[in-house]
Amino acid sequence: MIEDKNQQRTDLSQLGEFGLIDHLSKSFEIKQKSTIKAIGDDAAVLEYDNKRVVVTTDFLVEGVHFDLSYMPLKHLGYKAVIVNLSDVYAMNAEATQITVSIAVSNRFPLEAIEELYAGIQTACKLYDIDLIGGDTTSSTSGLIISVTAIGQVDKDNEVYRSGAKPNDLLVVSGDLGGAYLGLQVLEREKEVFKVNPNSQPDLDAYTYIVERQLKPEARKDIVKLLHELEVKPTSMIDISDGLSSEILHLCKASKVGCDLYENKLPLDPQVISTAEEFNMDSTTIALSGGEDYELLMTISQEDYPKIKANPNLTVIGFITEAASGAHLVTRGEQKIELTAQGWNSFDKD
Amino acid sequence: MIEDKNQQRTDLSQLGEFGLIDHLSKSFEIKQKSTIKAIGDDAAVLEYDNKRVVVTTDFLVEGVHFDLSYMPLKHLGYKAVIVNLSDVYAMNAEATQITVSIAVSNRFPLEAIEELYAGIQTACKLYDIDLIGGDTTSSTSGLIISVTAIGQVDKDNEVYRSGAKPNDLLVVSGDLGGAYLGLQVLEREKEVFKVNPNSQPDLDAYTYIVERQLKPEARKDIVKLLHELEVKPTSMIDISDGLSSEILHLCKASKVGCDLYENKLPLDPQVISTAEEFNMDSTTIALSGGEDYELLMTISQEDYPKIKANPNLTVIGFITEAASGAHLVTRGEQKIELTAQGWNSFDKD
Repeated sequence: MIEDKNQQRTDLSQLGEFGLIDHLSKSFEIKQKSTIKAIGDDAAVLEYDNKRVVVTTDFLVEGVHFDLSYMPLKHLGYKAVIVNLSDVYAMNAEATQITVSIAVSNRFPLEAIEELYAGIQTACKLYDIDLIGGDTTSSTSGLIISVTAIGQVDKDNEVYRSGAKPNDLLVVSGDLGGAYLGLQVLEREKEVFKVNPNSQPDLDAYTYIVERQLKPEARKDIVKLLHELEVKPTSMIDISDGLSSEILHLCKASKVGCDLYENKLPLDPQVISTAEEFNMDSTTIALSGGEDYELLMTISQEDYPKIKANPNLTVIGFITEAASGAHLVTRGEQKIELTAQGWNSFDKD
Repeated sequence: MIEDKNQQRTDLSQLGEFGLIDHLSKSFEIKQKSTIKAIGDDAAVLEYDNKRVVVTTDFLVEGVHFDLSYMPLKHLGYKAVIVNLSDVYAMNAEATQITVSIAVSNRFPLEAIEELYAGIQTACKLYDIDLIGGDTTSSTSGLIISVTAIGQVDKDNEVYRSGAKPNDLLVVSGDLGGAYLGLQVLEREKEVFKVNPNSQPDLDAYTYIVERQLKPEARKDIVKLLHELEVKPTSMIDISDGLSSEILHLCKASKVGCDLYENKLPLDPQVISTAEEFNMDSTTIALSGGEDYELLMTISQEDYPKIKANPNLTVIGFITEAASGAHLVTRGEQKIELTAQGWNSFDKD
C-alpha cells in the first residue's frame, strides 16, 4: 500500500556493524548537559553531580550470536550479562544494574526461559548486579536477548578509548584465543553428533577453552586491581571482536599507531595444543579469535613498575605516533601491518 | 548434544507478558544502594546524589508489534522512541537519552535503515533526546528494535504506580481509542489493497485516528503542565495496553479499588463515528484499545481546582478502598467489574 519509491539499495554487509553505527549516528546532535559521551566507546557516559553513569547495550540473536544446539540456555543467560558488564569495566567503571529484554517464539516453554534467567541471575549474584527492568515479548522466530548495563564511576576516573599516547605500553589482561578455539571444539563435536547421535563428547582435554566460550567472565577484578595499584590506564577497551580489531579501535580513537609483539601474546597451553590439533596458527587465533572479554589497555611508562610483577597483566607492545601505523612485530622480527579480522554479523548469511 | 532432561513444558501464553516478567524477576535481589526502584513500574529509578535517574526499555518485533506493509519505516522509528519516552514521562520525569539497538535481516537495504533512523532522529529533535548508544546486528528474520530510554527527576518528584489513595481522582490526558481504530482502518485498507492492488486508499475521513496509530506522541507537555500547575499526581502510568489494563495496574500497585464513569471517557468525534462505522462499541475501544500513550494518573481531591479548567485533563472516576474492587459505572448506572483486555503478544500466534 505504501510504496517505497527509493530504488537505491546498499547492502548492509558493505558497511559492517561499526560502519553502520557510524553512518547512522553521525547526524544526531547532543543536547543534554548530562550527556558526557554518547556513541563511540564501550559505553555512553552521563553525569549527575560528581557521579558519572555509564550505559551500554548489546543484542544477542539466535543463529547469529549463538547456537542453542551446544549453548545451554543457562550459559547463554550468563554470557549475555557478562558481555555487557565487560563493556562497563572497559570504561574503568563499576557495573551496577542491568535491564534484560527477550523476544522469544512459542517453541520455547517457560522452563527454557527460566533456565535462561537462572544464568542471568547467577551472573547478577556473582557480579553484584541489580536487574532493574526489561521487556518480554513474542518473536516470530528464535530467541533474541537485549541487555543494557549501567555502571558508575567517579568523575574523571572513567577511561575512554581515546587517551593513548605515544610511548604508552599496550597491556592485556589474562590470555587470548581460548574462546574461539572452544567454539571450534564445540562445532566439531556437533558435526560428530550429527553423524552418530549416540556419541558422547569427550571434552576433558578442552575444559579451559570450552569454558572460555560457554562461560566467559568479565574482568571486574582487573578494574579493582588497577584501582588498588593506583594505575589509571590512558585508554581501555574490552576484547570482544579479537585483539587486532580492538587495537585498531584504540589507535583510531587515540590517533596513534602501535607495535605489537607476537612473542609477548599471552596464550594458555591448551590454546597452543588445540591450535596445533586444528592445524591453526595460534597467533592468528589470538589476534582474530574474539569473545575473550579480556581488557586491552594502554598505560603510561611510569606506571610500569606497578604492574610488571602482576600475573594478570601482560605488556604486549607499545604505542607509536599515528604516522608509524599499527604493526605486528613477528617472532622473526618482521613488521606486518595489523588488519582487523574481527567479526561482522552482516557477513554471516 | 546437550540433552534437555526437563520434560515439563509451560506454554508462555498461559502467563502473558506481565506474568512472565513477575515470574522471572521475583527471585532477583536488589543489592545496589543506587537502585531505588527496579522492576514493576514504567521505568526503573536510580539515585545519584539528589538526582534520580529513570531507565525503561521496550522491544518492537516485526510481525508482532508492527506490520511494515502499512507502517512506513520512518514512522516506526519515531514510534519506537515515543513508546519509551512515554514510560519516562509516566514517572513524572524528564526524558534525556536513548539507546537504540536493531537486529535486521539482509533483506533490508541501508536506505531502509536510514529511513528508520530518520524517524528516530525526528523524535529525538522534537523531544530533546540524545541518542547515546546502541547495537546493530543481523537477524535471521525480520526487524527487531530495542530502545532504552533514560530520564531524570529531582529526588521525591518521581511518581510511581503505587501512590493512589481512596478518594483520589482518576484523571486521563487527551482522548482514548484513536490508535486502535486507526489500526482497524489501516488493516481494512490492506485487505482492499490485496484484492485490488490498484486501489488508492482514501484516508481523509480518518486522519486523526490514523495519525494516532502511525505517529503517536508522548505527553511531555503533560509533565510540564503538571509542574506548572503545581500538581504532583499520587500515582501515574502511561496507557499503552488499554485503559482497563492500566487502571488495574494502578489499583493493584496502590492496593485500592476505583469507580470509572463511562460517560466521562474522553472520545474524539472521529473515534465515535469510526466505531459506529465498524459496528464497534466506543466504550470497549476506549477501555481496551491500547497504544494511545496518554497518561493516566490519580490526583488528590485538593488539587482538583488546579486542573478542572484544563482541556488536556479529564476526570474519569475516583479511587475507592481495595475491598470495593474496580468497576465501570455505565451510562445506565450499572456497575460492571473492570477486566483487563489489554494486549498480550504471546497470544498472537
